[in-house]
Amino acid sequence: MPKKVPVVEKIHKVNDQLALENRAKLDEAGVFSVNLMASPGAGKTSLIERTLKTLGDEYNIAVIDGDLASSIDADRAAAAGATAVQINTGGSCHLDAHMLRNAFAELDLKKFDLLLVENVGNLVCPSGFQLGTHKNVLIASTPEGDDKPYKYPKMYQNVDVLIINKTDLLSLLSFDMEYFTKGVEILSPGLTTFPLSCQTGDGFDAWIDWLDTQMMSDE
Amino acid sequence: MPKKVPVVEKIHKVNDQLALENRAKLDEAGVFSVNLMASPGAGKTSLIERTLKTLGDEYNIAVIDGDLASSIDADRAAAAGATAVQINTGGSCHLDAHMLRNAFAELDLKKFDLLLVENVGNLVCPSGFQLGTHKNVLIASTPEGDDKPYKYPKMYQNVDVLIINKTDLLSLLSFDMEYFTKGVEILSPGLTTFPLSCQTGDGFDAWIDWLDTQMMSDE
Repeated sequence: MPKKVPVVEKIHKVNDQLALENRAKLDEAGVFSVNLMASPGAGKTSLIERTLKTLGDEYNIAVIDGDLASSIDADRAAAAGATAVQINTGGSCHLDAHMLRNAFAELDLKKFDLLLVENVGNLVCPSGFQLGTHKNVLIASTPEGDDKPYKYPKMYQNVDVLIINKTDLLSLLSFDMEYFTKGVEILSPGLTTFPLSCQTGDGFDAWIDWLDTQMMSDE
Repeated sequence: MPKKVPVVEKIHKVNDQLALENRAKLDEAGVFSVNLMASPGAGKTSLIERTLKTLGDEYNIAVIDGDLASSIDADRAAAAGATAVQINTGGSCHLDAHMLRNAFAELDLKKFDLLLVENVGNLVCPSGFQLGTHKNVLIASTPEGDDKPYKYPKMYQNVDVLIINKTDLLSLLSFDMEYFTKGVEILSPGLTTFPLSCQTGDGFDAWIDWLDTQMMSDE
Protein backbone atom coordinates (compact mmCIF):
# COMPACT_ATOMS: atom_id res chain seq x y z
CA MET A 1 0.00 0.00 0.00
CA PRO A 2 1.33 3.44 -0.83
CA LYS A 3 2.34 5.67 2.04
CA LYS A 4 -0.02 8.61 2.36
CA VAL A 5 1.59 12.03 2.57
CA PRO A 6 -0.75 14.66 3.97
CA VAL A 7 -1.46 17.56 1.59
CA VAL A 8 -0.04 20.15 3.98
CA GLU A 9 3.23 18.26 4.28
CA LYS A 10 3.50 18.04 0.50
CA ILE A 11 2.91 21.78 0.11
CA HIS A 12 5.68 22.53 2.60
CA LYS A 13 8.08 20.13 0.87
CA VAL A 14 7.53 21.78 -2.51
CA ASN A 15 7.84 25.22 -0.91
CA ASP A 16 11.12 24.31 0.82
CA GLN A 17 12.56 23.02 -2.46
CA LEU A 18 11.64 26.26 -4.25
CA ALA A 19 13.07 28.26 -1.32
CA LEU A 20 16.41 26.50 -1.80
CA GLU A 21 16.33 27.40 -5.49
CA ASN A 22 15.54 31.04 -4.63
CA ARG A 23 18.48 31.11 -2.22
CA ALA A 24 20.79 29.76 -4.93
CA LYS A 25 19.66 32.53 -7.30
CA LEU A 26 20.24 35.20 -4.64
CA ASP A 27 23.68 33.83 -3.83
CA GLU A 28 24.63 33.64 -7.49
CA ALA A 29 23.58 37.26 -7.95
CA GLY A 30 25.36 38.34 -4.76
CA VAL A 31 22.27 39.90 -3.16
CA PHE A 32 21.77 39.82 0.59
CA SER A 33 18.07 39.33 1.31
CA VAL A 34 15.72 39.73 4.21
CA ASN A 35 12.12 38.53 4.73
CA LEU A 36 10.26 41.10 6.85
CA MET A 37 7.31 39.70 8.77
CA ALA A 38 4.87 41.39 11.18
CA SER A 39 1.25 42.06 12.09
CA PRO A 40 -0.62 44.54 9.92
CA GLY A 41 0.62 48.06 10.62
CA ALA A 42 3.61 47.11 12.78
CA GLY A 43 5.90 49.17 10.55
CA LYS A 44 7.30 46.98 7.78
CA THR A 45 6.93 49.67 5.11
CA SER A 46 8.16 52.41 7.46
CA LEU A 47 11.26 50.32 8.23
CA ILE A 48 11.85 49.86 4.51
CA GLU A 49 11.41 53.59 3.82
CA ARG A 50 13.88 54.63 6.50
CA THR A 51 16.35 51.92 5.48
CA LEU A 52 16.17 53.20 1.89
CA LYS A 53 16.75 56.79 3.02
CA THR A 54 19.75 55.73 5.11
CA LEU A 55 21.42 53.22 2.79
CA GLY A 56 20.01 54.18 -0.63
CA ASP A 57 23.10 56.14 -1.69
CA GLU A 58 25.48 53.41 -0.61
CA TYR A 59 23.73 50.32 -1.96
CA ASN A 60 21.39 49.31 -4.76
CA ILE A 61 18.25 48.13 -3.02
CA ALA A 62 15.26 46.24 -4.37
CA VAL A 63 11.96 45.77 -2.56
CA ILE A 64 9.37 43.06 -3.14
CA ASP A 65 6.03 43.83 -1.48
CA GLY A 66 3.44 41.20 -0.69
CA ASP A 67 -0.15 42.31 -0.19
CA LEU A 68 -3.63 40.88 -0.56
CA ALA A 69 -4.58 43.84 -2.70
CA SER A 70 -3.39 47.34 -3.69
CA SER A 71 0.13 48.60 -4.50
CA ILE A 72 0.32 51.08 -1.61
CA ASP A 73 3.50 49.61 -0.11
CA ALA A 74 5.35 49.16 -3.40
CA ASP A 75 4.43 52.76 -4.31
CA ARG A 76 5.88 53.96 -0.99
CA ALA A 77 9.08 51.95 -1.54
CA ALA A 78 9.41 53.28 -5.10
CA ALA A 79 8.84 56.84 -3.88
CA ALA A 80 11.66 56.28 -1.36
CA GLY A 81 14.01 55.37 -4.21
CA ALA A 82 13.87 51.58 -4.48
CA THR A 83 13.20 49.35 -7.44
CA ALA A 84 9.92 47.88 -6.20
CA VAL A 85 7.88 44.89 -7.29
CA GLN A 86 4.36 44.29 -5.97
CA ILE A 87 3.02 40.79 -5.46
CA ASN A 88 -0.75 40.70 -5.03
CA THR A 89 -1.45 37.40 -3.33
CA GLY A 90 -5.11 37.46 -4.37
CA GLY A 91 -6.35 36.66 -0.88
CA SER A 92 -3.53 34.41 0.31
CA CYS A 93 -2.42 35.24 3.83
CA HIS A 94 1.34 34.88 3.31
CA LEU A 95 4.04 34.91 0.67
CA ASP A 96 5.54 31.63 -0.45
CA ALA A 97 8.70 30.65 -2.33
CA HIS A 98 6.81 30.29 -5.61
CA MET A 99 5.49 33.89 -5.45
CA LEU A 100 9.00 35.16 -4.72
CA ARG A 101 10.37 33.23 -7.68
CA ASN A 102 7.79 34.88 -9.93
CA ALA A 103 8.78 38.31 -8.58
CA PHE A 104 12.45 37.56 -9.35
CA ALA A 105 11.48 37.48 -13.04
CA GLU A 106 10.71 41.21 -12.76
CA LEU A 107 14.14 42.08 -11.36
CA ASP A 108 17.69 41.87 -12.67
CA LEU A 109 18.98 40.52 -9.36
CA LYS A 110 22.66 41.05 -10.27
CA LYS A 111 22.10 44.81 -10.14
CA PHE A 112 21.27 44.81 -6.43
CA ASP A 113 23.18 44.54 -3.15
CA LEU A 114 20.15 44.20 -0.90
CA LEU A 115 16.67 42.77 -1.34
CA LEU A 116 13.99 43.59 1.22
CA VAL A 117 10.93 41.35 1.00
CA GLU A 118 7.83 42.65 2.78
CA ASN A 119 5.54 39.77 3.65
CA VAL A 120 1.76 40.00 4.08
CA GLY A 121 0.80 41.56 7.43
CA ASN A 122 0.08 38.48 9.51
CA LEU A 123 1.58 37.08 12.72
CA VAL A 124 0.57 33.49 11.99
CA CYS A 125 0.80 32.15 8.47
CA PRO A 126 4.07 33.58 7.06
CA SER A 127 6.13 31.72 9.68
CA GLY A 128 5.32 28.40 8.00
CA PHE A 129 6.71 29.31 4.59
CA GLN A 130 10.43 29.82 3.97
CA LEU A 131 11.07 32.11 1.01
CA GLY A 132 14.77 31.40 0.54
CA THR A 133 15.93 34.76 1.88
CA HIS A 134 19.09 34.84 4.01
CA LYS A 135 17.39 36.14 7.14
CA ASN A 136 13.90 36.16 8.60
CA VAL A 137 13.20 39.39 10.47
CA LEU A 138 10.17 39.91 12.71
CA ILE A 139 8.91 43.39 13.57
CA ALA A 140 7.00 43.67 16.83
CA SER A 141 5.14 46.89 17.54
CA THR A 142 4.77 48.20 21.09
CA PRO A 143 1.03 49.10 20.77
CA GLU A 144 0.35 45.42 20.00
CA GLY A 145 1.09 44.65 23.63
CA ASP A 146 3.70 42.70 25.56
CA ASP A 147 2.02 39.28 25.37
CA LYS A 148 2.60 38.55 21.69
CA PRO A 149 5.52 36.08 22.07
CA TYR A 150 3.31 33.95 24.31
CA LYS A 151 0.33 34.10 21.93
CA TYR A 152 2.17 33.73 18.60
CA PRO A 153 5.04 31.44 19.62
CA LYS A 154 5.68 29.91 16.20
CA MET A 155 6.44 33.30 14.69
CA TYR A 156 8.77 34.24 17.55
CA GLN A 157 10.51 30.89 17.31
CA ASN A 158 11.40 30.98 13.64
CA VAL A 159 13.21 34.27 13.17
CA ASP A 160 16.82 35.44 13.07
CA VAL A 161 16.26 39.03 14.15
CA LEU A 162 13.58 40.84 16.15
CA ILE A 163 12.86 44.54 15.74
CA ILE A 164 10.75 46.22 18.44
CA ASN A 165 9.23 49.20 16.64
CA LYS A 166 7.33 52.28 17.91
CA THR A 167 9.43 52.67 21.04
CA ASP A 168 8.44 56.36 20.91
CA LEU A 169 4.95 55.34 22.10
CA LEU A 170 6.22 53.28 25.08
CA SER A 171 5.61 55.97 27.70
CA LEU A 172 1.89 55.99 26.79
CA LEU A 173 1.42 52.22 26.85
CA SER A 174 1.28 49.62 29.58
CA PHE A 175 3.95 47.56 27.81
CA ASP A 176 6.08 45.49 30.22
CA MET A 177 9.40 45.11 28.39
CA GLU A 178 10.67 42.56 30.93
CA TYR A 179 7.64 40.28 30.41
CA PHE A 180 7.93 40.64 26.62
CA THR A 181 11.67 39.91 26.61
CA LYS A 182 11.21 36.90 28.88
CA GLY A 183 8.81 35.39 26.36
CA VAL A 184 11.20 36.03 23.49
CA GLU A 185 14.10 34.52 25.46
CA ILE A 186 12.15 31.31 26.12
CA LEU A 187 11.31 30.88 22.43
CA SER A 188 14.51 32.17 20.83
CA PRO A 189 17.36 32.36 23.34
CA GLY A 190 19.89 35.06 22.51
CA LEU A 191 17.85 36.46 19.62
CA THR A 192 19.40 39.57 18.04
CA THR A 193 16.96 42.36 18.97
CA PHE A 194 16.75 46.02 17.94
CA PRO A 195 14.35 48.31 19.83
CA LEU A 196 13.82 51.36 17.63
CA SER A 197 11.38 53.92 16.28
CA CYS A 198 10.92 54.24 12.52
CA GLN A 199 9.13 57.52 13.25
CA THR A 200 11.85 59.31 15.24
CA GLY A 201 14.87 57.27 14.10
CA ASP A 202 15.80 56.46 17.69
CA GLY A 203 17.74 53.17 17.81
CA PHE A 204 17.76 52.85 14.02
CA ASP A 205 21.57 52.92 13.71
CA ALA A 206 21.92 49.48 15.32
CA TRP A 207 19.65 47.94 12.64
CA ILE A 208 21.60 49.70 9.88
CA ASP A 209 24.93 48.53 11.37
CA TRP A 210 23.63 44.97 11.45
CA LEU A 211 22.54 45.15 7.79
CA ASP A 212 25.90 46.68 6.85
CA THR A 213 27.80 43.90 8.60
CA GLN A 214 25.67 41.22 6.97
CA MET A 215 26.27 42.66 3.52
CA MET A 216 29.98 42.96 4.06
CA SER A 217 30.35 39.41 5.30
CA ASP A 218 28.17 38.31 2.38
CA GLU A 219 30.66 39.61 -0.20
CA MET B 1 -18.05 12.76 -15.66
CA PRO B 2 -18.41 13.88 -12.03
CA LYS B 3 -18.19 17.58 -11.33
CA LYS B 4 -15.10 18.46 -9.36
CA VAL B 5 -15.63 20.55 -6.25
CA PRO B 6 -12.43 22.26 -5.09
CA VAL B 7 -11.34 21.32 -1.57
CA VAL B 8 -11.50 24.93 -0.36
CA GLU B 9 -15.09 25.28 -1.54
CA LYS B 10 -16.02 22.06 0.24
CA ILE B 11 -14.45 23.27 3.48
CA HIS B 12 -16.43 26.51 3.31
CA LYS B 13 -19.66 24.64 2.59
CA VAL B 14 -19.22 22.39 5.64
CA ASN B 15 -18.27 25.40 7.75
CA ASP B 16 -21.33 27.38 6.63
CA GLN B 17 -23.58 24.44 7.49
CA LEU B 18 -22.07 24.18 10.99
CA ALA B 19 -22.37 27.96 11.39
CA LEU B 20 -26.11 27.70 10.72
CA GLU B 21 -26.37 25.00 13.37
CA ASN B 22 -24.45 27.20 15.84
CA ARG B 23 -26.81 30.08 15.12
CA ALA B 24 -29.82 27.86 15.78
CA LYS B 25 -28.33 26.82 19.15
CA LEU B 26 -27.68 30.45 20.10
CA ASP B 27 -31.19 31.50 19.10
CA GLU B 28 -32.73 28.62 20.99
CA ALA B 29 -30.79 29.60 24.10
CA GLY B 30 -31.63 33.30 23.64
CA VAL B 31 -28.00 34.46 23.61
CA PHE B 32 -26.94 37.43 21.50
CA SER B 33 -23.47 36.73 20.11
CA VAL B 34 -20.65 38.68 18.54
CA ASN B 35 -17.53 37.53 16.68
CA LEU B 36 -14.67 39.96 17.41
CA MET B 37 -11.97 40.07 14.76
CA ALA B 38 -8.80 42.17 14.52
CA SER B 39 -5.04 42.20 14.00
CA PRO B 40 -2.90 40.99 16.92
CA GLY B 41 -2.95 43.58 19.66
CA ALA B 42 -5.70 45.81 18.25
CA GLY B 43 -7.60 45.55 21.53
CA LYS B 44 -10.03 42.62 21.36
CA THR B 45 -9.34 41.53 24.93
CA SER B 46 -9.34 45.11 26.20
CA LEU B 47 -12.73 45.68 24.57
CA ILE B 48 -14.02 42.52 26.23
CA GLU B 49 -12.65 43.55 29.63
CA ARG B 50 -14.24 46.99 29.52
CA THR B 51 -17.54 45.59 28.19
CA LEU B 52 -17.59 43.12 31.10
CA LYS B 53 -16.92 45.90 33.58
CA THR B 54 -19.71 48.01 32.12
CA LEU B 55 -22.39 45.37 31.51
CA GLY B 56 -21.34 42.57 33.85
CA ASP B 57 -23.88 43.48 36.56
CA GLU B 58 -26.74 43.81 34.10
CA TYR B 59 -26.18 40.73 31.94
CA ASN B 60 -24.72 37.25 32.17
CA ILE B 61 -21.81 37.26 29.77
CA ALA B 62 -19.75 34.38 28.40
CA VAL B 63 -16.47 34.72 26.51
CA ILE B 64 -14.90 32.23 24.11
CA ASP B 65 -11.26 33.02 23.33
CA GLY B 66 -9.44 31.69 20.29
CA ASP B 67 -5.66 31.61 20.37
CA LEU B 68 -2.84 29.64 18.80
CA ALA B 69 -1.45 28.94 22.24
CA SER B 70 -1.74 30.10 25.87
CA SER B 71 -4.81 31.02 27.91
CA ILE B 72 -3.82 34.66 28.53
CA ASP B 73 -6.99 36.14 27.03
CA ALA B 74 -9.41 33.71 28.69
CA ASP B 75 -7.65 34.35 32.01
CA ARG B 76 -8.13 38.11 31.54
CA ALA B 77 -11.82 37.63 30.66
CA ALA B 78 -12.33 35.38 33.70
CA ALA B 79 -10.56 37.89 35.93
CA ALA B 80 -12.98 40.54 34.63
CA GLY B 81 -15.90 38.39 35.73
CA ALA B 82 -16.92 36.36 32.69
CA THR B 83 -17.40 32.65 32.27
CA ALA B 84 -14.54 32.06 29.83
CA VAL B 85 -13.65 29.16 27.56
CA GLN B 86 -10.29 28.98 25.79
CA ILE B 87 -9.96 27.39 22.36
CA ASN B 88 -6.36 26.65 21.44
CA THR B 89 -6.37 26.33 17.67
CA GLY B 90 -3.08 24.43 17.65
CA GLY B 91 -1.55 26.63 14.99
CA SER B 92 -4.67 27.39 12.95
CA CYS B 93 -4.88 31.06 11.99
CA HIS B 94 -8.62 31.54 12.57
CA LEU B 95 -11.59 30.11 14.43
CA ASP B 96 -14.15 28.09 12.51
CA ALA B 97 -17.71 26.97 13.19
CA HIS B 98 -16.57 23.52 14.29
CA MET B 99 -14.27 24.94 16.98
CA LEU B 100 -17.08 27.13 18.25
CA ARG B 101 -19.43 24.17 18.39
CA ASN B 102 -16.88 22.31 20.52
CA ALA B 103 -16.61 25.30 22.84
CA PHE B 104 -20.41 25.36 23.25
CA ALA B 105 -20.12 21.96 24.92
CA GLU B 106 -18.28 23.70 27.79
CA LEU B 107 -21.04 26.25 28.35
CA ASP B 108 -24.67 26.09 29.44
CA LEU B 109 -25.73 28.62 26.78
CA LYS B 110 -29.19 29.15 28.32
CA LYS B 111 -27.56 30.83 31.31
CA PHE B 112 -26.18 33.71 29.25
CA ASP B 113 -27.51 36.89 27.64
CA LEU B 114 -24.40 37.75 25.68
CA LEU B 115 -21.58 35.71 24.14
CA LEU B 116 -18.39 37.47 23.06
CA VAL B 117 -16.19 35.36 20.78
CA GLU B 118 -12.61 36.57 20.43
CA ASN B 119 -11.14 35.32 17.18
CA VAL B 120 -7.42 34.68 16.54
CA GLY B 121 -5.51 37.93 15.93
CA ASN B 122 -5.38 38.03 12.14
CA LEU B 123 -6.67 40.52 9.57
CA VAL B 124 -6.87 37.95 6.76
CA CYS B 125 -8.05 34.43 7.51
CA PRO B 126 -10.95 34.88 10.00
CA SER B 127 -13.02 36.79 7.40
CA GLY B 128 -13.47 33.61 5.35
CA PHE B 129 -15.09 31.58 8.14
CA GLN B 130 -18.53 32.35 9.49
CA LEU B 131 -18.98 31.12 13.07
CA GLY B 132 -22.75 31.46 13.33
CA THR B 133 -22.67 34.48 15.65
CA HIS B 134 -25.28 37.21 15.11
CA LYS B 135 -22.80 39.94 14.27
CA ASN B 136 -19.24 40.19 12.96
CA VAL B 137 -17.34 43.04 14.58
CA LEU B 138 -13.97 44.28 13.34
CA ILE B 139 -11.63 46.25 15.61
CA ALA B 140 -9.20 48.56 13.83
CA SER B 141 -6.42 50.12 15.85
CA THR B 142 -5.12 53.60 15.02
CA PRO B 143 -1.38 52.70 15.35
CA GLU B 144 -1.91 50.14 12.56
CA GLY B 145 -2.24 53.03 10.12
CA ASP B 146 -4.95 54.50 7.93
CA ASP B 147 -4.37 52.28 4.88
CA LYS B 148 -5.72 49.01 6.29
CA PRO B 149 -9.14 49.02 4.52
CA TYR B 150 -7.29 49.27 1.18
CA LYS B 151 -4.84 46.50 2.06
CA TYR B 152 -7.23 44.06 3.79
CA PRO B 153 -10.43 44.68 1.81
CA LYS B 154 -12.02 41.28 2.40
CA MET B 155 -12.03 41.82 6.15
CA TYR B 156 -13.47 45.31 5.85
CA GLN B 157 -16.12 44.05 3.44
CA ASN B 158 -17.53 41.28 5.57
CA VAL B 159 -18.36 42.92 8.89
CA ASP B 160 -21.47 44.42 10.51
CA VAL B 161 -19.73 46.83 12.87
CA LEU B 162 -16.35 48.58 12.90
CA ILE B 163 -14.66 49.75 16.08
CA ILE B 164 -11.76 52.18 15.74
CA ASN B 165 -9.76 51.63 18.92
CA LYS B 166 -6.87 53.56 20.53
CA THR B 167 -8.23 56.98 19.57
CA ASP B 168 -6.26 58.29 22.58
CA LEU B 169 -3.07 57.83 20.52
CA LEU B 170 -4.35 59.72 17.45
CA SER B 171 -2.58 63.01 18.25
CA LEU B 172 0.76 61.17 18.12
CA LEU B 173 0.16 59.34 14.85
CA SER B 174 -0.02 60.39 11.23
CA PHE B 175 -3.42 58.71 10.86
CA ASP B 176 -5.63 60.38 8.23
CA MET B 177 -9.18 59.61 9.40
CA GLU B 178 -10.69 60.92 6.17
CA TYR B 179 -8.58 58.56 4.04
CA PHE B 180 -9.36 55.63 6.35
CA THR B 181 -13.11 56.37 6.36
CA LYS B 182 -13.17 56.74 2.57
CA GLY B 183 -11.75 53.24 2.22
CA VAL B 184 -14.29 51.82 4.67
CA GLU B 185 -17.14 53.59 2.84
CA ILE B 186 -16.11 52.09 -0.52
CA LEU B 187 -16.04 48.55 0.90
CA SER B 188 -18.95 48.73 3.36
CA PRO B 189 -21.18 51.73 2.66
CA GLY B 190 -22.92 53.02 5.78
CA LEU B 191 -21.05 50.66 8.13
CA THR B 192 -21.90 51.24 11.81
CA THR B 193 -18.65 52.62 13.26
CA PHE B 194 -17.57 53.39 16.82
CA PRO B 195 -14.34 55.35 17.37
CA LEU B 196 -13.30 54.78 20.97
CA SER B 197 -10.50 54.13 23.42
CA CYS B 198 -10.59 51.00 25.58
CA GLN B 199 -7.84 52.63 27.63
CA THR B 200 -9.56 55.91 28.55
CA GLY B 201 -13.17 54.86 27.94
CA ASP B 202 -13.71 57.75 25.54
CA GLY B 203 -16.48 56.90 23.04
CA PHE B 204 -17.20 53.56 24.76
CA ASP B 205 -20.83 54.44 25.59
CA ALA B 206 -21.88 54.27 21.93
CA TRP B 207 -20.62 50.66 21.68
CA ILE B 208 -22.41 49.74 24.90
CA ASP B 209 -25.63 51.40 23.69
CA TRP B 210 -25.42 49.44 20.44
CA LEU B 211 -24.93 46.14 22.34
CA ASP B 212 -27.83 47.03 24.65
CA THR B 213 -30.13 47.75 21.72
CA GLN B 214 -29.15 44.53 19.98
CA MET B 215 -29.86 42.48 23.10
CA MET B 216 -33.20 44.13 23.66
CA SER B 217 -34.37 43.63 20.07
CA ASP B 218 -33.11 40.03 20.31
CA GLU B 219 -35.54 39.21 23.10
